[in-house]
Amino acid sequence: VSNLKNENAPIGVFDSGIGGLTVLKTLLQSFPNENFIYVGDTARLPYGNKSPQTIRRYTEETLEFLKQKGIKCAVIACNSASSQFSEANFKEIPVFNVIAPGAQAAQAQTKNKKIGVLGTRATVTSEAYSKALLSLSPDLNIYSVACPLFVPLAEEGLDEDPITNLIAFRYLNGLKNLNIDTCILGCTHYPILKKAISKVLGDEVQLIESGEALAQSIELAMNSGSIPKNQSKESRSIELFATDHNSSFDSMAARILGAHFAAATSAGCSY
Amino acid sequence: VSNLKNENAPIGVFDSGIGGLTVLKTLLQSFPNENFIYVGDTARLPYGNKSPQTIRRYTEETLEFLKQKGIKCAVIACNSASSQFSEANFKEIPVFNVIAPGAQAAQAQTKNKKIGVLGTRATVTSEAYSKALLSLSPDLNIYSVACPLFVPLAEEGLDEDPITNLIAFRYLNGLKNLNIDTCILGCTHYPILKKAISKVLGDEVQLIESGEALAQSIELAMNSGSIPKNQSKESRSIELFATDHNSSFDSMAARILGAHFAAATSAGCSY
Repeated sequence: VSNLKNENAPIGVFDSGIGGLTVLKTLLQSFPNENFIYVGDTARLPYGNKSPQTIRRYTEETLEFLKQKGIKCAVIACNSASSQFSEANFKEIPVFNVIAPGAQAAQAQTKNKKIGVLGTRATVTSEAYSKALLSLSPDLNIYSVACPLFVPLAEEGLDEDPITNLIAFRYLNGLKNLNIDTCILGCTHYPILKKAISKVLGDEVQLIESGEALAQSIELAMNSGSIPKNQSKESRSIELFATDHNSSFDSMAARILGAHFAAATSAGCSY
Repeated sequence: VSNLKNENAPIGVFDSGIGGLTVLKTLLQSFPNENFIYVGDTARLPYGNKSPQTIRRYTEETLEFLKQKGIKCAVIACNSASSQFSEANFKEIPVFNVIAPGAQAAQAQTKNKKIGVLGTRATVTSEAYSKALLSLSPDLNIYSVACPLFVPLAEEGLDEDPITNLIAFRYLNGLKNLNIDTCILGCTHYPILKKAISKVLGDEVQLIESGEALAQSIELAMNSGSIPKNQSKESRSIELFATDHNSSFDSMAARILGAHFAAATSAGCSY
C-alpha cells in the first residue's frame, strides 16, 4: 500500500493523545491543499513514563495503521515516540519526527549557545534532543529537565492556575539560573503551559515549539520533490481517529482545531 | 482451565499499575498459605480517564490472562476497573472487586451517615460506590469527588510535598465543609497520599482503604467453602507480572511489598 507517488494521498499525523493536535493545526494552516489523517493513541496514553520497547512497539503499530490508510508520508508529533523511534528502521514511507526540526530551530535561535530542553522522562532519558543539537553544533551547552506533571496539568486544563505556576517554578528555577536564552518545549502538551513556563524563565528566553519547525522541513521535502504536493483544487479531507474515542477527545479537538474541526470527521479505531 | 476446586491454585490480583501492590501486600499478610499471581497493566495505565468500554476490554483481557494461569479466584484491585466490570458477565471464576467491601466498611463505620468518596473520573462518573452504599443503606448522604491529579502526584513520590497539600486542599475543602465522618479512598494510589488527605479533612474523619475490607470478604468466602483454602505446608509462590516491565516497577514493588518482594519472581507479560 505505497502511496508515496500519489499526490492526493493524505499526510498521516500521530500522537499518543490530543497534544499532537496542536501540531496538526499548524500543518493544516501551512498546507491548505493537503489531506490529513490524525491518530491519537488515547487508549494507551501517556507514553512519557513507559519503557523504550513499549513506546517503540506502539509507534510501529500506529505507523502500520497509517500505512494501511494509504498515506504518502507520516509525522510523529509525539516527542516521546520521536525520541525512541528510528526512521532508518521504517523505509516504506518517509517519516518526519519533531526532534530534528526542533533542534534545528533552537540552534538557529540561540546566541549564547545555552539551550534548555523540557520533556517527558522518556524523552529526556533518551537524550534525543541533546544528540541532535550536538550533531548540529558541538559547542552548545544543553540543559534537559523532565517535567512529568506538566502533561496531567495541561490535560486538566490548569494552564492558568497558581498550582501550575508553583510546579513550573519547581521544575524550571534551576534552568533560569543557568542563563539559557532558548528553550525547546519537547512535548506537544507543553505549548499549552507556555505562559507558566515564561513566567519562570522570563520573556527574554525564546520558547521553541515543534509544529512550525516541522512544517518547514515538510515544505523543504516537497520543494525538493521527495514528497509530492497535492495540486488538486477539490476540498481537502481531514480524518481524526482515536483508539479510545470519547466526547472529551472531540471537545479538545474542537477547542484546538477551531474552524478546521467542523470540516473534519472523527471516529474510533483499533489496531 | 478451571482451577476453582484446586486449593493449591493461586489467587490472581489485577491492577492497572503499581497501586494494587498495596492491596496485594494486605492479602499476602492475611493469607500466609496462599499462592499469588499479580498483574499490573503498566503498558496501558492509567485507566482512570479512559472510557468505560476501553476499561472493560482491558479488564476482560487481563482476567483471561489470569484464567490461563490457572487461578482459583481473581481480585480486581483497581477501582476504575472494578467500577466498570460486572462479575455477572464472568461466571467462570469467582471475581472480587474493591467496591463492595469498601462500601460495606464505610457503611459500618459512619455515625452521622455522611460519607465522602474520592476516586478517578471513571470511578466517580460510574457512581459505583454511591450505588453500592445506597443499596446497603438508602438514608446515607454520599459526596463524591474526582481527584485526577492524585495518581500522578503519588507516582512522582510527592506524598510529603507542599504541592500535594495544596492540591488536596483544592479537591477536598468542599468535602470538609459538608461535615463527613467517613471517607472512602476509592483508588489504590490514594492510601499513599493519606497524610495530605487527613491534613485537609481532619484526623476525626475515618479513611477507608479497600485492602483490608477486601481481605475480609475473601476470608468469608473461604470459610463458607465457596473458595478452597490452601492447606499445603509448602512455601508459597508469589509471581509478579507487568505488561511494561521495567526497573521502576521492580523498585516500587520492593518498596511496597518489603520482605515479600525477596520471595517473589517478577517478569514481563503480554496479552
